[in-house]
Amino acid sequence: MSTTTVTRRQKADAIRALSMDAVQRANSGHPGAPMGLADLAEVLWCDYLKHNPQNPAWCDRDRFVLSNGHASMLLYALLHLSGYDLSIDDIKNFRQLHSKTPGHPEYGHTPGVETTTGPLGQGLANAVGMAAAERTLAAQFNRGAHTIVDHFTYALVGDGCLMEGVSHEACSLAGALGLGKLIAFYDANGISIDGEVSGWFNDDTAQRFAAYRWHVVDAVDGHDPAAVAAAIDAARAETERPSLLICRTVIGFGSPNKAGKASSHGAPLGEDEVALARAELNWPHAPFEVPSAIRDAWNAVDAGAAAEQEWQARFDAYGREHPDAAAEFTRRITGALPADWAAHAQKTVAEVNAEAADIASRKASQNALEKFGAALPELIGGSADLAESNLTLWSKSRSIRDHADGNYIYFGVREFGMAAFVNGVAAHRGFKPYAATFLVFSEYARNALRMAALMQVPGIFVFTHDSIGLGEDGPTHQPVEQLATLRLLPGLSLWRPCDAVETVVAWRLACESVDRPFALALSRQSLPHQPRDDAQLDMIRRGGYVLRDGGDGGDGGSDGGGGGEPEAIIIATGSEVALAVQAAEALPARRIRVVSLPSVDHFESQDDAYRESVLPPTVTARVAVEAGVTAPWRNYVGARGAVVGIDTFGASAPAADVFEAFNITVKRVTECVEEVLART
Amino acid sequence: MSTTTVTRRQKADAIRALSMDAVQRANSGHPGAPMGLADLAEVLWCDYLKHNPQNPAWCDRDRFVLSNGHASMLLYALLHLSGYDLSIDDIKNFRQLHSKTPGHPEYGHTPGVETTTGPLGQGLANAVGMAAAERTLAAQFNRGAHTIVDHFTYALVGDGCLMEGVSHEACSLAGALGLGKLIAFYDANGISIDGEVSGWFNDDTAQRFAAYRWHVVDAVDGHDPAAVAAAIDAARAETERPSLLICRTVIGFGSPNKAGKASSHGAPLGEDEVALARAELNWPHAPFEVPSAIRDAWNAVDAGAAAEQEWQARFDAYGREHPDAAAEFTRRITGALPADWAAHAQKTVAEVNAEAADIASRKASQNALEKFGAALPELIGGSADLAESNLTLWSKSRSIRDHADGNYIYFGVREFGMAAFVNGVAAHRGFKPYAATFLVFSEYARNALRMAALMQVPGIFVFTHDSIGLGEDGPTHQPVEQLATLRLLPGLSLWRPCDAVETVVAWRLACESVDRPFALALSRQSLPHQPRDDAQLDMIRRGGYVLRDGGDGGDGGSDGGGGGEPEAIIIATGSEVALAVQAAEALPARRIRVVSLPSVDHFESQDDAYRESVLPPTVTARVAVEAGVTAPWRNYVGARGAVVGIDTFGASAPAADVFEAFNITVKRVTECVEEVLART
Repeated sequence: MSTTTVTRRQKADAIRALSMDAVQRANSGHPGAPMGLADLAEVLWCDYLKHNPQNPAWCDRDRFVLSNGHASMLLYALLHLSGYDLSIDDIKNFRQLHSKTPGHPEYGHTPGVETTTGPLGQGLANAVGMAAAERTLAAQFNRGAHTIVDHFTYALVGDGCLMEGVSHEACSLAGALGLGKLIAFYDANGISIDGEVSGWFNDDTAQRFAAYRWHVVDAVDGHDPAAVAAAIDAARAETERPSLLICRTVIGFGSPNKAGKASSHGAPLGEDEVALARAELNWPHAPFEVPSAIRDAWNAVDAGAAAEQEWQARFDAYGREHPDAAAEFTRRITGALPADWAAHAQKTVAEVNAEAADIASRKASQNALEKFGAALPELIGGSADLAESNLTLWSKSRSIRDHADGNYIYFGVREFGMAAFVNGVAAHRGFKPYAATFLVFSEYARNALRMAALMQVPGIFVFTHDSIGLGEDGPTHQPVEQLATLRLLPGLSLWRPCDAVETVVAWRLACESVDRPFALALSRQSLPHQPRDDAQLDMIRRGGYVLRDGGDGGDGGSDGGGGGEPEAIIIATGSEVALAVQAAEALPARRIRVVSLPSVDHFESQDDAYRESVLPPTVTARVAVEAGVTAPWRNYVGARGAVVGIDTFGASAPAADVFEAFNITVKRVTECVEEVLART
Repeated sequence: MSTTTVTRRQKADAIRALSMDAVQRANSGHPGAPMGLADLAEVLWCDYLKHNPQNPAWCDRDRFVLSNGHASMLLYALLHLSGYDLSIDDIKNFRQLHSKTPGHPEYGHTPGVETTTGPLGQGLANAVGMAAAERTLAAQFNRGAHTIVDHFTYALVGDGCLMEGVSHEACSLAGALGLGKLIAFYDANGISIDGEVSGWFNDDTAQRFAAYRWHVVDAVDGHDPAAVAAAIDAARAETERPSLLICRTVIGFGSPNKAGKASSHGAPLGEDEVALARAELNWPHAPFEVPSAIRDAWNAVDAGAAAEQEWQARFDAYGREHPDAAAEFTRRITGALPADWAAHAQKTVAEVNAEAADIASRKASQNALEKFGAALPELIGGSADLAESNLTLWSKSRSIRDHADGNYIYFGVREFGMAAFVNGVAAHRGFKPYAATFLVFSEYARNALRMAALMQVPGIFVFTHDSIGLGEDGPTHQPVEQLATLRLLPGLSLWRPCDAVETVVAWRLACESVDRPFALALSRQSLPHQPRDDAQLDMIRRGGYVLRDGGDGGDGGSDGGGGGEPEAIIIATGSEVALAVQAAEALPARRIRVVSLPSVDHFESQDDAYRESVLPPTVTARVAVEAGVTAPWRNYVGARGAVVGIDTFGASAPAADVFEAFNITVKRVTECVEEVLART
């Protein structure tokens, strides 16, 4: 075979064979999409994709996103055949514990996987974020003839992705932004899990995307390499609009009895059918065997190394002419903070502390953005049409739609698309992305927050109007359970600061995060400044600390774990901290400690000694106060304790009336303290 | 004034005046949309809408959904002026505590409000569900010339609704279903909160909806009553496709300085501007004053009563000819269960118990659907393209697309749209709707679940693949925190049954629910039958009960609270109950109680005596087992106890390997029991 020319079809059939074999061996998986997409992927990967298998982190590689993540074997086969660090044994271990080939592609787990996909539609939205990142980074760093950022973002999407609402949000936004280097392939195979999609999905997708101001190439034969290549050429030639290439394919192509049917979608073909497919494809090789000539034809190691070397030479030339920009680019891409960051951040926190301002934490957040934005040009973000409410605009905000090198995105009313976009920006690297909406509408984006945590990408999610304290908008807009549910998301750090000082510390930590997303729950209403000494100021980052100890005059100034043992502890977060302090002050005869707990996850990651210094196990008279569901706080207050919160939906009324109506008041807290002290 | 003819414009200006006055008085709210929509709404409500202000529950009324719920004053003004039980004092109390005019319209709270809106896009999706309910109910009950179900569903939607992804899901589905009596008005005022939408939303919406196979009337002048009427006529004449009327309006119409601007959107106009608007509109009347002639022109009480009387006469005639159908219709609309329901349900549960089948709870769910579907023709539902995985199809399932009187909906991959659709069906009445997807993708629909709970509409949400036990699909598909987060949603009942018997009981309770949605978390994998005596069988409905008490031979058969006090208690749910039982059996020398806790919310609503009979406070040696986050279980096991669960994301591998890898095993549970017993 080594002397004959390897055909495109043979190369594609290698994908088909590996896919059906791996799924069969795992006895689990989705052979249909990889088999249907093999021809298309062969053209893209062999003739167009700019990548270096030996360095998947090369910053100017094209991005390839498999939004229909269940087609994972397509991607694994492509990576394996191209020469990534993914062996045939890895392929054989498809869907096995600790293998590099899990059921759906996982970012950070398998070399060459650009984003975690599986939950449909989000990969496409990630790709929109990546394309926006590329364009913005290019505008910020390219100089004249020196083009150091210039890559495409390719996405493969299935019917499921396009049925999901997030596809609407992301693609409408991509159209509005005119992301010309985003190229999506729609695997129009007409089949979803329930069968022929025409029964529930008969959109004219070409028309739909034209309505989004996309460039559409319709009716591409996804099994005709020349047609696919022509479509890609047309897409690359279009620079002002994203492109959708609607490719007609046959799901399970090559399987004589299951091609074109839902039966090839999500289950192994079966040993017999695999054998029949081998015959149909004229693929006589044993399972997992790929002839060396076909392997050679796929191997992209040398070409990839050459491509990166060529880029490196350009980057070196850029560096000679623009050394500062080159150094800054390297800093940005590696995610390092500026050299003076720690000093700047420290100074900023100290300044905010000295200002002692009584302001809403959403306003404090805007102030933090102003201070840190000036130091971190990588900050890029926006709001889901709530800029004036979320306070996400700062003095240097410039829309990336109107300014190619800008730093602000008017996301529109698209919470889910926004969050998935942010995940794409973070995975692209070069930016610290943030996004904002009301806390209750974090739910619209909930699974994208989960994906951020799972991928360990450090987006910053600004969630304002964080309680019934938002007032008149009423129960549809008032979070009750959201703080608690976000705290249950593994790998997400939630902060609910009690004043401007805690807010700026939370923003600082969010900016410093490299592997976990942050959610900042911020108040609509003004919050009084809480006095702290230097030791307390430093302890905010621990997520929980003694804000006030009783018996010292009641006016702050205690050190963290010192002082005599309190009679009772009030634990509070966010807007309820002031209420806890007032309650403590209303009981001057009692030695009452107030613990501010802005971040449960950070606090719980502290060592036992610290946690017990803040919450001594011997002090069982405890009251927790948070304008949200009470159950999670029972762990903190124990059997003797009490929780002041709200376990029903809120109500529409001015904020003060709502707090009063739900009995989240100083009086109620003091009553609870006395009740708890009376218990033994 | 009473002798002059009242103009349409004067009637519309009454809405404008009430809206700007109420928002001004509340010093909070959204005047712009009501002022922009007043002319359009006047035409619809005065010339087309079939409704009876004195009986908002009349089943054949047209449905009017204000999807842009922040325009609540439009709806309140319409209800007030039409003669609903909503007084001028109610209007004056806009956005005040306990008023009938909260910030956003609330279903069940204000007469004439068809659904709760505010979270954008969902009202539109509710309307799609309502229109599907109307068409299906009509096909099921109309007989020849007897048309007893025949109403339109009208929805008002704003730019925000159409930016939200849920609008894509719902409208694409509505197009696929061909809901000809759904008529949506798009308030195309070009303004959202962040300003002119063209900067982030420049879809060609007419083209987009044409792509969904909708009938579109573009460029309607929303301030020209004749143009609006012509558009409505065209929409009503189109019977095969839903209609979108794209109405150009001026937000804040009448406000000389804020009309057409974002400043009129979400804040009071200000006293001065209100005065200027009064002058501009030539509306000289005092705040909240509407001249009696204009009131008379609006009053729809007599016309509404006549309309219902006419329908009643038709229904009476229908009843004479089809007495059984009429009785059944009345039962369906009132939400009563069939007379023999209790006996049927009881018998079904007993049969399932006698079968003692070892099957997956998703399969048990399908069996329950088969049994209860036969008894409850009001059951209607489907899956988000996972029918064969969720097992939502039963022998009598017939697609409503192919059979107008069917009972099954192929929802496509549209979780959020599906859930909001279900809420609309439930609010319409006449059906018990259900919907299904994987548990982890409940997150895509999260806010619709919240809306179901807030509205107290009893949809049934079937969430299968409820843990890492789903295996190879990996962490993107494996729920970890979802059981816990759903339990925190006020008003949602979550069930995680441990076998077929608990599954059928959960289904029974879900079918019997009138005011709360149910979520059923079901296993992919097979679960062994747990033996129970009659008393235990009866206690399942309490949400938690003693499944096995130690010292009695270990083989079931204990009564609920009886027997000697156990040494230790293992609390478990769903698939982990079998594991708990095995662990107890593995410690024959110990007196170990196993408590099955399929529904925490139901259990917690029991009285103290019952709860303490199941979980005696004196027994502090406790272990909880659930394949999910552990923190919430700490409340159940206390300081001495232990929790076996998983606090990270899962992994892709065969289910048994995943349980082993995360140490959720019989061995681990027995170790924990011994550890806990060793503690004091």
